[in-house]
Amino acid sequence: MIGSLLQPEIEELIRNQQWNELREALAGLDPSDIAELILDLPEERADVAIFRILPRDSAATVFSHLPPDHQEHLLRALSNEQMRSVLAGMSPDDQARLIEHLPAEVTRRLLEVLSPEELSQARDLLGYPPNTAGRFMTPKYVALFPEMTAEQALAYTRQFGRGKETLNVLYIVDRNGILLGDVRLGAVVTADPNSTVPEIEGRPVVSIPATMDRQDVVQEFRKYDRSALPVVDDQGHMLGIITVDDVLDVAEEEATEDIQKIGGMEALDAPYTQVGFFDMLKKRGGWLAALFLGETLTATAMGHFEKEIARAAVVALFVPLIISSGGNSGSQATSIIIRALALRELKLRDWWWVFGREIASGFALGAFLGAVGFCRIVLWHYLGWAHYDGHPYLIATTVWVSLIGVVTFGSLVGAMLPFILRRVGLDPATASAPFVATLVDVTGLVIYFTVALLILHNTLLKGV
Amino acid sequence: MIGSLLQPEIEELIRNQQWNELREALAGLDPSDIAELILDLPEERADVAIFRILPRDSAATVFSHLPPDHQEHLLRALSNEQMRSVLAGMSPDDQARLIEHLPAEVTRRLLEVLSPEELSQARDLLGYPPNTAGRFMTPKYVALFPEMTAEQALAYTRQFGRGKETLNVLYIVDRNGILLGDVRLGAVVTADPNSTVPEIEGRPVVSIPATMDRQDVVQEFRKYDRSALPVVDDQGHMLGIITVDDVLDVAEEEATEDIQKIGGMEALDAPYTQVGFFDMLKKRGGWLAALFLGETLTATAMGHFEKEIARAAVVALFVPLIISSGGNSGSQATSIIIRALALRELKLRDWWWVFGREIASGFALGAFLGAVGFCRIVLWHYLGWAHYDGHPYLIATTVWVSLIGVVTFGSLVGAMLPFILRRVGLDPATASAPFVATLVDVTGLVIYFTVALLILHNTLLKGV
Repeated sequence: MIGSLLQPEIEELIRNQQWNELREALAGLDPSDIAELILDLPEERADVAIFRILPRDSAATVFSHLPPDHQEHLLRALSNEQMRSVLAGMSPDDQARLIEHLPAEVTRRLLEVLSPEELSQARDLLGYPPNTAGRFMTPKYVALFPEMTAEQALAYTRQFGRGKETLNVLYIVDRNGILLGDVRLGAVVTADPNSTVPEIEGRPVVSIPATMDRQDVVQEFRKYDRSALPVVDDQGHMLGIITVDDVLDVAEEEATEDIQKIGGMEALDAPYTQVGFFDMLKKRGGWLAALFLGETLTATAMGHFEKEIARAAVVALFVPLIISSGGNSGSQATSIIIRALALRELKLRDWWWVFGREIASGFALGAFLGAVGFCRIVLWHYLGWAHYDGHPYLIATTVWVSLIGVVTFGSLVGAMLPFILRRVGLDPATASAPFVATLVDVTGLVIYFTVALLILHNTLLKGV
Repeated sequence: MIGSLLQPEIEELIRNQQWNELREALAGLDPSDIAELILDLPEERADVAIFRILPRDSAATVFSHLPPDHQEHLLRALSNEQMRSVLAGMSPDDQARLIEHLPAEVTRRLLEVLSPEELSQARDLLGYPPNTAGRFMTPKYVALFPEMTAEQALAYTRQFGRGKETLNVLYIVDRNGILLGDVRLGAVVTADPNSTVPEIEGRPVVSIPATMDRQDVVQEFRKYDRSALPVVDDQGHMLGIITVDDVLDVAEEEATEDIQKIGGMEALDAPYTQVGFFDMLKKRGGWLAALFLGETLTATAMGHFEKEIARAAVVALFVPLIISSGGNSGSQATSIIIRALALRELKLRDWWWVFGREIASGFALGAFLGAVGFCRIVLWHYLGWAHYDGHPYLIATTVWVSLIGVVTFGSLVGAMLPFILRRVGLDPATASAPFVATLVDVTGLVIYFTVALLILHNTLLKGV
């Protein structure tokens, strides 16, 4: 909440090439504020000027805070030496994430400037499947041996602690690299100096497999309230740590993706303000066209009832009302279930329980909406606002019965689709509200016209 | 990931009243796993049995991990002495959150058992408006004076650090209680023992006003990547700290609320599996009924075009297709904008920029969908699958032109509604996908029939 006040001043300094003054002005700012400042600067190449001046450590941190496309732009503009310096200051997980997102030519130039050790750390992280714990762990942690005392652990941390991602939690590892436990630095400081490190905190070992999906990682952090968790391979060897501030970013990204998918589009993968116009069109247009093609089936379905519509146009008036109610109840159910699956409140095996519950909910909600609709139609008739071809009660009953069927069907489809998608290995959030609505629209039409034919075949729809 | 394996064994121990063995079995478990175990235990009052046995500290932690309704149930079952012991072990922010959620009678009993000091801490936290930083800060932190050296700070932490929420970050506060800065314990440990604490970390002070909205707090944590941030009043006095693990919970809760609202319902405020059937109906039924009443306007709108429908039923066939496309594009736009506002990627003042962009997007997407629709209709005509009363090109043009209008309007309404809601002080997520779809349906019908009248008045709709 600081940077924006200084912006005009900083621009002035760059324009006048007052580099020393600029260096001083930047020294008082947090790296994340400098990153924000860079994004707001109108001037071309102002970012490169700032990077020439920043001390190496904060240059790397500022760089980590920039969006991917701006990072790419900067990498192309910086000299090899500057690039090396920025990269060397980044943590391996940030390096890995950067390398993964860059076009091949930039990656090649970038891998050339990494030292062999940095390269191998970044490569290790990249060896895990996307969106698993292995991708965003960092190997920069302090490992203690189990025979150390609190005093020794403190001295060891003092000696080897610099440059680690976090010192908040230290890890107890045996000579074979097997994780035995962890201990908070705060607990080490306040402990009896002569107690051995495994004695300090009596808490059980909690660890994360490197292959765990990142949404599961978020839930593990929520469950255990820790500031960092260790990542292990399937033999229990400690590989790295994940810190909760990275997990917060993951949680927000996952939620953003889910919200955009539920809205009926591809995830944008970048802030709205930074997605290009045509990129945006592509991410929205694809799903819109697919939904549109699905929805053309409604025209086909209605085509089958064209004679009925021509005979009694009044039947057509309620089409949008009926099918939208099915879509709305489906949209509710799918949003609830997608989120409950993401938070691991529901597991795949719970589908049968949800099935029963949503049938009951759908029936109750449909009956309720139908009653509202029935009253509305009868009321309009008595007020003389609509005539319903002289059969208000029959039409009102048709609407009521159809709504029970359509809303029940909508709730059920909305609730089951996320389970089915998860079962076949797809993202449950693909069961977007518009997708469910489209599915329900076609079926809803068939339900409605079938009910109408059954109820009205002796009156309005006689002889059709 | 440990508890579930032990469950049958634990049940066995409780049934046989083997309390000592039970105590031993629980000692090896993390409090969050014990909480999970309690939720899974089928036996009535098994939870009370477990709470009798747990040591005081872990009893409080286990209790914090239970869902609110289970906490309430337990509080009623525990003796006053047990309740005191559980509460005393909880941090003030957890106490405050608990008190806020309980029915008045339980709260009264509970406030009686709190010590005056605990009560005043919990009351302080409760004095801030709901969903602000003041509500989930904790006053349990270590404050250093600026003249202390690293060595003194370490000794001070050793002496006063027990029982604090976190020792990961220590706070530098002057004699008047004004926050001067913070320093990580890890940096204190690795620093030159003789340097004073303000010298250790050259980073600028970042703090959070107590009245800041909790979604803003999440974004501040994302920006600064800190494990804890200090909370201050408007004069800069330090009031407490917020730790990132609490912020992770807030971020997930906020996203859950937004997703459920976007789905077109009230936020559930509890996991799906723990919301009662009738509660669920209430939270879904209210919005469904409101949307339904809004949607009855489509019947009114279509009533105005009943003559046209009776004359050329073919026109009615495309109604669901057209209006659903408007709803889908609106659903996309509203989800994107709601999320961008929540993440503070967009500010209120950006509405004008979004307005221009969404008009352009909507027009492009509508023109694209219209082209798809045009081809589909003409193709069906040539394949002989539909006859369109002999005017396939006129109908296809009607669909095309209408889609441009409806999709543009849908994108615009979907994008602007969240801004308007935020402007008048409501939650932007109230602009749910179904809400936008309903708004767009009514207007979409009018657009479609108006275009149809303009294009078809000399042919299919002659003389209407």
